[in-house]
Amino acid sequence: MVVTAANEDLVAGRIMAAEIAEQPAVLERVLRDGVAAIHSVAAAIAARKPRFVLFTARGTSDNAALYAKYLAEVLLGLPAGLTSPSTTTAYGARPDMRDVLVISVSQSGGSPDIVEATAIARECGAITVAVTNDASSALATAAEMHLDILAGTELATPATKSYTAQLLTLYLLMARLAERDSGAANALPEQAMEVLTAAEDMRALATRYRFASHLVVTARGYSYATAREAALKIMETSYLSTHAFSGADLLHGPLAMVDGVSPVIAIASEGVGGAALAPVIERLHERGADLLVVGSAIYASTGTLGLTLPAGVPEELSPILEILPLQRLAYEIAVTRGLDPDAPRALAKVTRTW
Amino acid sequence: MVVTAANEDLVAGRIMAAEIAEQPAVLERVLRDGVAAIHSVAAAIAARKPRFVLFTARGTSDNAALYAKYLAEVLLGLPAGLTSPSTTTAYGARPDMRDVLVISVSQSGGSPDIVEATAIARECGAITVAVTNDASSALATAAEMHLDILAGTELATPATKSYTAQLLTLYLLMARLAERDSGAANALPEQAMEVLTAAEDMRALATRYRFASHLVVTARGYSYATAREAALKIMETSYLSTHAFSGADLLHGPLAMVDGVSPVIAIASEGVGGAALAPVIERLHERGADLLVVGSAIYASTGTLGLTLPAGVPEELSPILEILPLQRLAYEIAVTRGLDPDAPRALAKVTRTW
Repeated sequence: MVVTAANEDLVAGRIMAAEIAEQPAVLERVLRDGVAAIHSVAAAIAARKPRFVLFTARGTSDNAALYAKYLAEVLLGLPAGLTSPSTTTAYGARPDMRDVLVISVSQSGGSPDIVEATAIARECGAITVAVTNDASSALATAAEMHLDILAGTELATPATKSYTAQLLTLYLLMARLAERDSGAANALPEQAMEVLTAAEDMRALATRYRFASHLVVTARGYSYATAREAALKIMETSYLSTHAFSGADLLHGPLAMVDGVSPVIAIASEGVGGAALAPVIERLHERGADLLVVGSAIYASTGTLGLTLPAGVPEELSPILEILPLQRLAYEIAVTRGLDPDAPRALAKVTRTW
Repeated sequence: MVVTAANEDLVAGRIMAAEIAEQPAVLERVLRDGVAAIHSVAAAIAARKPRFVLFTARGTSDNAALYAKYLAEVLLGLPAGLTSPSTTTAYGARPDMRDVLVISVSQSGGSPDIVEATAIARECGAITVAVTNDASSALATAAEMHLDILAGTELATPATKSYTAQLLTLYLLMARLAERDSGAANALPEQAMEVLTAAEDMRALATRYRFASHLVVTARGYSYATAREAALKIMETSYLSTHAFSGADLLHGPLAMVDGVSPVIAIASEGVGGAALAPVIERLHERGADLLVVGSAIYASTGTLGLTLPAGVPEELSPILEILPLQRLAYEIAVTRGLDPDAPRALAKVTRTW
């Protein structure tokens, strides 16, 4: 997106739009300039033989952590969890963290509770790695090791390029630790460009959600992180109440909420996650949901509407592409509602929670 | 609640109302008849010296598991997490589970994916404990050890008495493992009765939410489980779109959604969780939220409306009481909307997800 200086103040969301568009270049940069550091951190971690993995993060970064948790369990075969930072920072717990790999994810590296939880984990014996967009941040210093996600300064309040840079960095780290070939990741910059070009005009789709009062996003497996991040993006830019549910959890209660006037977005990649979501998509049709399916062509055709992503992408890489049209959708819903997605009301870029 | 045979078919939600009312007796039963088994399971676990705790559950039971995760971290000082069952059941992961205590929580003990995830964890070397309301269930058999929550048959689709029975059982187990005095729990049946008597008429409060389009529930620490369970209960009985956010996560994005017409319920107990929520309550006031505060008298007075819970309850036991008026509120919102909370549309009592 090219914006001239003359009209730049007039275009709501121009920063977010530009940062969304920058993602192919950011992914390229991680693959080119980030891999050496990732391999060296992986070697240092492997030498310590962790037995458990914990992730510490909030907001968008917590969704990246959720994705990485699946990678840790499936690729590394290690039990993994997401921490509740308050147990150490507020309740004073000092768990025995020997043999635990703690990966703390934060765009800014500045959230005080994430910094403190990481410092405490380190004191308690954990192997600590910070994944941030700022090598000079407090978090980068608090952790023993640091990985820079190389996304460049992110100015819009809703995180976009830092999210996909986090996903790719965490994928490359986990693949290296698992001694897996990560060659398929090299196609991501071009695939991301293709997806973003196809998603350029989401205005018509956004218009359908103009007057929606709430939205449900669902997925299973790796794509569950995409569902959560899409919901967060829509909420923070458009103030539209949006729920993310794992397909399995949706059937445990919240399905009652869905009826003929409920818009639902389902994310179904090729592979296990999409296959596991197929029966959920059927149940949603039975409930009369208005269903947009984003993902593999096999599933995209099963929705009321579909957005097809490139074929042949390994399932564990799909979340890096799936979120792109949904970021655009969040942006367009905000614009169609007359809001400025660059600077949502009530939010600051670095959230200071203790 | 006494319902005569003559009118029983006419009263929507009579089963849920009766099961809510039964909770003081259920808590009493757990304290009287459940403790011996809990102590014997605790001794068996302690002998194996677990270093990491994982919980496997879905829906309401997952909210009980979230509460117990805080107990594991704070009382036991062990790193803990919630599993994503699909990583083993769908993706075929076989993590190294030696030294891992896996606690699987399910009212029915019949969810196939929870049963399978537990069986796999056991094969992979975990110490497995099932916490269910049915000693003859598949889950009770799949795990090495079993704890019966003694709630008695639960007939209403929305779980109520099984939730508080799960919380108390998990608390007593964790307190025993931590060699903590759990004597304060003996006051719970009487306190629960007091809370339920005070919450008998929530109709006026429910009427305020009659036409709400969405609701936000927030808390920090132990009470975050209450926030999630209250949101689930309201969604499944009233089909009202309800979000639960940890107070910290709320400030990381979703706060943008809250404005002068957004009803918010905050749960603030005495102690660390309530204190950590106080600045969030302030921010919500700044945003003009309609705020109901449930909990300690100190905080209940800071809302637009307040519901005060008994004083002097240790913070880690508060969730067992906090949920009671919120179950009643969910029930009343459903009734005021002309719905039958006993049997929400689209839901079955045992959810079969794979």
